[in-house]
Amino acid sequence: MAEVNKVVLAYSGGLDTSVILKWLQETYNCEVVTFTADLGQGEEVEPARAKAQAMGVKEIYIDDLREEFVRDFVFPMFRANTVYEGEYLLGTSIARPLIAKRLIEIANETGADAISHGATGKGNDQVRFELGAYALKPGVKVIAPWREWDLLSREKLMDYAAKHEIPIERHGKKKSPYSMDANLLHISYEGGVLEDTWAEHEEDMWRWSVSPENAPDQATYIELSYQNGDIVAIDGKEMSPATVLAYLNKVGGDNGIGRLDIVENRFVGMKSRGCYETPGGTIMLKGHRAIESITLDREVAHLKDSLMPKYAELIYNGFWWSPERVMLQQMIDASQAQVNGVVRLKLYKGNVVVVGRKSDDSLFDANIATFEDDAGAYDQADAAGFIKLNALRMRIAANKGRKLL
Amino acid sequence: MAEVNKVVLAYSGGLDTSVILKWLQETYNCEVVTFTADLGQGEEVEPARAKAQAMGVKEIYIDDLREEFVRDFVFPMFRANTVYEGEYLLGTSIARPLIAKRLIEIANETGADAISHGATGKGNDQVRFELGAYALKPGVKVIAPWREWDLLSREKLMDYAAKHEIPIERHGKKKSPYSMDANLLHISYEGGVLEDTWAEHEEDMWRWSVSPENAPDQATYIELSYQNGDIVAIDGKEMSPATVLAYLNKVGGDNGIGRLDIVENRFVGMKSRGCYETPGGTIMLKGHRAIESITLDREVAHLKDSLMPKYAELIYNGFWWSPERVMLQQMIDASQAQVNGVVRLKLYKGNVVVVGRKSDDSLFDANIATFEDDAGAYDQADAAGFIKLNALRMRIAANKGRKLL
Amino acid sequence: MAEVNKVVLAYSGGLDTSVILKWLQETYNCEVVTFTADLGQGEEVEPARAKAQAMGVKEIYIDDLREEFVRDFVFPMFRANTVYEGEYLLGTSIARPLIAKRLIEIANETGADAISHGATGKGNDQVRFELGAYALKPGVKVIAPWREWDLLSREKLMDYAAKHEIPIERHGKKKSPYSMDANLLHISYEGGVLEDTWAEHEEDMWRWSVSPENAPDQATYIELSYQNGDIVAIDGKEMSPATVLAYLNKVGGDNGIGRLDIVENRFVGMKSRGCYETPGGTIMLKGHRAIESITLDREVAHLKDSLMPKYAELIYNGFWWSPERVMLQQMIDASQAQVNGVVRLKLYKGNVVVVGRKSDDSLFDANIATFEDDAGAYDQADAAGFIKLNALRMRIAANKGRKLL
Amino acid sequence: MAEVNKVVLAYSGGLDTSVILKWLQETYNCEVVTFTADLGQGEEVEPARAKAQAMGVKEIYIDDLREEFVRDFVFPMFRANTVYEGEYLLGTSIARPLIAKRLIEIANETGADAISHGATGKGNDQVRFELGAYALKPGVKVIAPWREWDLLSREKLMDYAAKHEIPIERHGKKKSPYSMDANLLHISYEGGVLEDTWAEHEEDMWRWSVSPENAPDQATYIELSYQNGDIVAIDGKEMSPATVLAYLNKVGGDNGIGRLDIVENRFVGMKSRGCYETPGGTIMLKGHRAIESITLDREVAHLKDSLMPKYAELIYNGFWWSPERVMLQQMIDASQAQVNGVVRLKLYKGNVVVVGRKSDDSLFDANIATFEDDAGAYDQADAAGFIKLNALRMRIAANKGRKLL
Repeated sequence: MAEVNKVVLAYSGGLDTSVILKWLQETYNCEVVTFTADLGQGEEVEPARAKAQAMGVKEIYIDDLREEFVRDFVFPMFRANTVYEGEYLLGTSIARPLIAKRLIEIANETGADAISHGATGKGNDQVRFELGAYALKPGVKVIAPWREWDLLSREKLMDYAAKHEIPIERHGKKKSPYSMDANLLHISYEGGVLEDTWAEHEEDMWRWSVSPENAPDQATYIELSYQNGDIVAIDGKEMSPATVLAYLNKVGGDNGIGRLDIVENRFVGMKSRGCYETPGGTIMLKGHRAIESITLDREVAHLKDSLMPKYAELIYNGFWWSPERVMLQQMIDASQAQVNGVVRLKLYKGNVVVVGRKSDDSLFDANIATFEDDAGAYDQADAAGFIKLNALRMRIAANKGRKLL
Repeated sequence: MAEVNKVVLAYSGGLDTSVILKWLQETYNCEVVTFTADLGQGEEVEPARAKAQAMGVKEIYIDDLREEFVRDFVFPMFRANTVYEGEYLLGTSIARPLIAKRLIEIANETGADAISHGATGKGNDQVRFELGAYALKPGVKVIAPWREWDLLSREKLMDYAAKHEIPIERHGKKKSPYSMDANLLHISYEGGVLEDTWAEHEEDMWRWSVSPENAPDQATYIELSYQNGDIVAIDGKEMSPATVLAYLNKVGGDNGIGRLDIVENRFVGMKSRGCYETPGGTIMLKGHRAIESITLDREVAHLKDSLMPKYAELIYNGFWWSPERVMLQQMIDASQAQVNGVVRLKLYKGNVVVVGRKSDDSLFDANIATFEDDAGAYDQADAAGFIKLNALRMRIAANKGRKLL
Repeated sequence: MAEVNKVVLAYSGGLDTSVILKWLQETYNCEVVTFTADLGQGEEVEPARAKAQAMGVKEIYIDDLREEFVRDFVFPMFRANTVYEGEYLLGTSIARPLIAKRLIEIANETGADAISHGATGKGNDQVRFELGAYALKPGVKVIAPWREWDLLSREKLMDYAAKHEIPIERHGKKKSPYSMDANLLHISYEGGVLEDTWAEHEEDMWRWSVSPENAPDQATYIELSYQNGDIVAIDGKEMSPATVLAYLNKVGGDNGIGRLDIVENRFVGMKSRGCYETPGGTIMLKGHRAIESITLDREVAHLKDSLMPKYAELIYNGFWWSPERVMLQQMIDASQAQVNGVVRLKLYKGNVVVVGRKSDDSLFDANIATFEDDAGAYDQADAAGFIKLNALRMRIAANKGRKLL
Repeated sequence: MAEVNKVVLAYSGGLDTSVILKWLQETYNCEVVTFTADLGQGEEVEPARAKAQAMGVKEIYIDDLREEFVRDFVFPMFRANTVYEGEYLLGTSIARPLIAKRLIEIANETGADAISHGATGKGNDQVRFELGAYALKPGVKVIAPWREWDLLSREKLMDYAAKHEIPIERHGKKKSPYSMDANLLHISYEGGVLEDTWAEHEEDMWRWSVSPENAPDQATYIELSYQNGDIVAIDGKEMSPATVLAYLNKVGGDNGIGRLDIVENRFVGMKSRGCYETPGGTIMLKGHRAIESITLDREVAHLKDSLMPKYAELIYNGFWWSPERVMLQQMIDASQAQVNGVVRLKLYKGNVVVVGRKSDDSLFDANIATFEDDAGAYDQADAAGFIKLNALRMRIAANKGRKLL
């Protein structure tokens, strides 16, 4: 077991990380620094302070990271229309690198030589935390209790908590059967009945959105204003990044938008089923594609599309803090210089429908595209040569008797 | 002007291609063979016979190609989860290579040395028809009247029709302001008010689907059975490919599914706006991803995803009958060997929601994925080494003082 | 025929472009501006002035573009280790965008509304010139005489020259049977005996290099110093970009380096055979890969490699002045920030052998790589977990009876 | 420590694997089956039998795998023109999957529950062996002594050998300072002086080839006959795959061909320097590109090129026995249907020069490619439209004031 002097713990204030806090103190006989972040998960972070103090923690960090999260992580990711495996908007994946970064910053500030987190040994999050930590502070020690300890069942955990007088909060509501994670971009559900891929998810699982059935019978229209690929205003009102996302979550959730039920491939090698609510993100993806559709060059758009799966995989697998992600990001960001304008969307019972897009940087040329007479803007005769030469290699091959199959 | 003896015309029986028929006879002083295909566009094809006969055509081909269309074109394309520019399901693109193939087959059967079609010089369809034709019969002559003649306005066309006694049918319904194209996979709309990208599409434009607002308040559940990536049964009932698609169009359209409004990039170089109704295709895309999610290896799935944009571009651009499309297809088809099983979907007011998937070939392993005790199926300690070596290059770099940005 | 007031002609001073000059004056009855560039082709450019004057040209541009050519075109291209179809170093392709750019700059300066060049209608160069011209000045008229006139045989051309008193220079040496093009990066040969792909190229065709057989029996060693991926010094002596390339051409050519004989695929659709001498470029490619091998992150290097074929294709096809090339370039350039250091090469009878590389930015860590005891720098036990999880998806599949073939 | 009943050991007969053999017997108290393969490494394999018997091994496998190695591994890999990181021909990587396969086949035949190998915990080979083993027999136990034992220095190893009376052979020649590995495709060198990336490799390190300096002053010409992308005859004489490679190694080595000195990126995360001799492989790569240059469609060739880095990475990283490698292989193999014909090469002092290529399946069309009059085979006027439409998106953008930079 590595010798550890001081460890920074990603601390939610909940039971699991409270047990970890105690376990670190006992097992490593070291000082623990707690770090609790408001990433928009919708729970108070301040209560974590008293809990940490009660366990003797002297250095307590509680940060509101919502603006940084959306501005420096969510928005850059959406510039690429990022979707993992055709469906998943990477809500959990994109929050981890920010937490890793803060853990290391705090380790540097407090002179800690280790970090710790509450992610299990089966999931992607351990990878995302630790790859980030190693990349930013290569000599850091990482303590992942779930990979080390023997408290592998809930009973043992509760026993440990009871034995060490760690308070177990009793919410009015029943303990959820799901493993959940939330931030401003999404809330995720795993485990429970979802471990049967044939079983339908339960309606009462969802927390952030009404069902399409329960959404209003009247559509909601919104206008998103883009600058360099990011939303800077909604319905003409300028908003900060976190405010944009919070607003879209609200209006999206109200309209039954953004629920997803998938089986995904984890980096550690197994398939797992997850359900996700991403109301704002679902709207953002649709809106961004729409504003790009009139402002982006075709080949730039296609190049971006061809690299997107790689970029999504990097984020999913935890390589945000890698030189290849940074390199791809530079290209993606460069492509957004003229992604400016307004998209108009209709939200209705789970549907996000593009109904208009306009931009001073639009490359749509009605004179050329028109079915009416274009007054010579486009010479149709050019098409004959264009086709002939595009076909030439195939004509030569066919002339020489080459068959396609 | 090329000398032409006999030309096979893709003939719909409508005004435009009737004018073309006459114009070909007059301009090239050649025999015309007509070819009319039922691709599921929802209009009678048989009436084309009498019209062609009335204009003196002796060789008239009227084919029901619906099964071939879905089996050999639509289904193979959906095996790749093909989407162009993030949105478009390629409904028009995928029908053109079949028409090209039949035009050439008929040319070979009838000894024709040329083909002709009614696509304009601004669009993608001319490219798709002609690339296919050249690839399959390299010496064929292609006559594209819209690139040659001077009948470029509707008035001139009508005058020509009147002068040559070509009957102009008056439907009860008003002439649509849109340029439309339909087949079993979709119906498309271009032109008219759509040429203003900011203008909302009109509700009465849509032909195949009710609006989500007008869809039933009760959800519809369906089960799709897959074999080698293709749907072979719905709700346990075996169906032919065309029947599958027709059924899904019906149930999808009834539930307000599959409308799309986009600005796309044409191969000939301009942006254009199109609206599409693809009820069945929208369901198929969602279902296919779901069955793949439990049956496909992760890296196979990611490799497919990374090549999909290229594959979609090939189809959009008209390169179906190219060796590179065939080569990609072989890889895609090979990946589908175990894409077998059943997907359960909920259809509700425009939404297609996956609610279950199962397969004898499932790679989902509940024992390993579980949040509960897995009885040693997975050794969490392995993750530490996995992460350490994945991080090694970044740790070395950071140790040497390398910064990420 | 388009109406033209003034045209800028890419003018070499040779027979062909002199005929074009006269033909433009006669055919378009317009003023001609000549532009002659020294790109390092090894021929005097100044004589073009008198010839142009003799034909009444008033605006004559003669530019030494060697530094700009290497600094802004050749060097950026080599940062990507660019090779077309596995072999070709793009010597011709990379010069064309610079000429296109100057043609347009001169057109803007002189108020010309057209440009003209001497490239044939079968080759890639017409595409490269014209795509660049259109991208930089979208309304420009392009006159490509070889696609327009009827002087398609050498006899007719000579007759035209004689008739118009265009002087035909008689070199001491016999007229080459090859179509050649040269600049500081390479000299190319096409046509003649090369049109038979089985015929061996003739030794006396080559102009810039001795054969390996005739190269010195003693090897030459050189050290290339890199900064941000570009060579800034040779054997410790700082040199400008053009001087670097000229020097490497000399030492490479002296050692029989850089000859190539290939069949390539042209953008216009046919295969053609070309022979190329690229002594300096061949050394640069080898050297650049070597300096990258110790300074570049693995995944950055692999990402670059995966995009290189696309980047090479863009340059070959004439899309240097396209947004997608610019976008790729930004990523490539960003990757070169730490590509600094020295490479030592041995040149011997056609061989370029890397014998050493060093860098303050090296990521090579002898302590970790060593076969000797590494004092704990690397924990071999990590590898077990790394392998286990990399294998997990395949173990699960095999456990479920999935076969690979 | 896992309980093991019987283990199959990849046994060379040398000191290291003899120590492992003994160590396995002692440590795991289990039966050991030895497997020794002739992959063309150039050493006798039969002596391994007596050594194994002397240590009490009852089941001894000695296989000549040369034909299988070249036919099923080397040849398929060369169909893709596979090169790792621009330089490395993957000589070691491609042999490992065959050994993994045989280890598992023997485990199945002998009822063994484990395999073992002598690869270290720092290298790629452990990964390649073990990924293959796990993919083919998911429940197999893997014993990698170098990751487990404490015999980490040569002294301890020698002490162990002495203590257990394992004979240490004294060759006449001095022990090489390099870690070497050989098979029919190549011989590799690592360690020793090579751990300094600036130090030149020593001439007396190389075993298989003469230096270019010492190669004959007379060039050697050979003709390679291809069928479906594989060499089936040399100079008109039909040969088996292994015979082809042995022949090319001989003639290549005699002409100083195939030496390489690189720094490469290992899958486990560090950079390492390796020197390689691959005489036959170097010739094969050049020859295969040449035969493809006349027989492969352009876009098929470019698609192959764009996927090659991924394919090379898969093989380098040990994923030969993965579904994604199999999937890529199907595409690659399909592309080779018409890669038939003859390539003529000149070998001279390290150089492999293509001097001719011919094929009944050639797509080279001299009539179209010619610089002479082509009698109308190609209409130069087509190029104007081709260029115009390729430029259209850029012209529109420039017209709207869009700048490239």
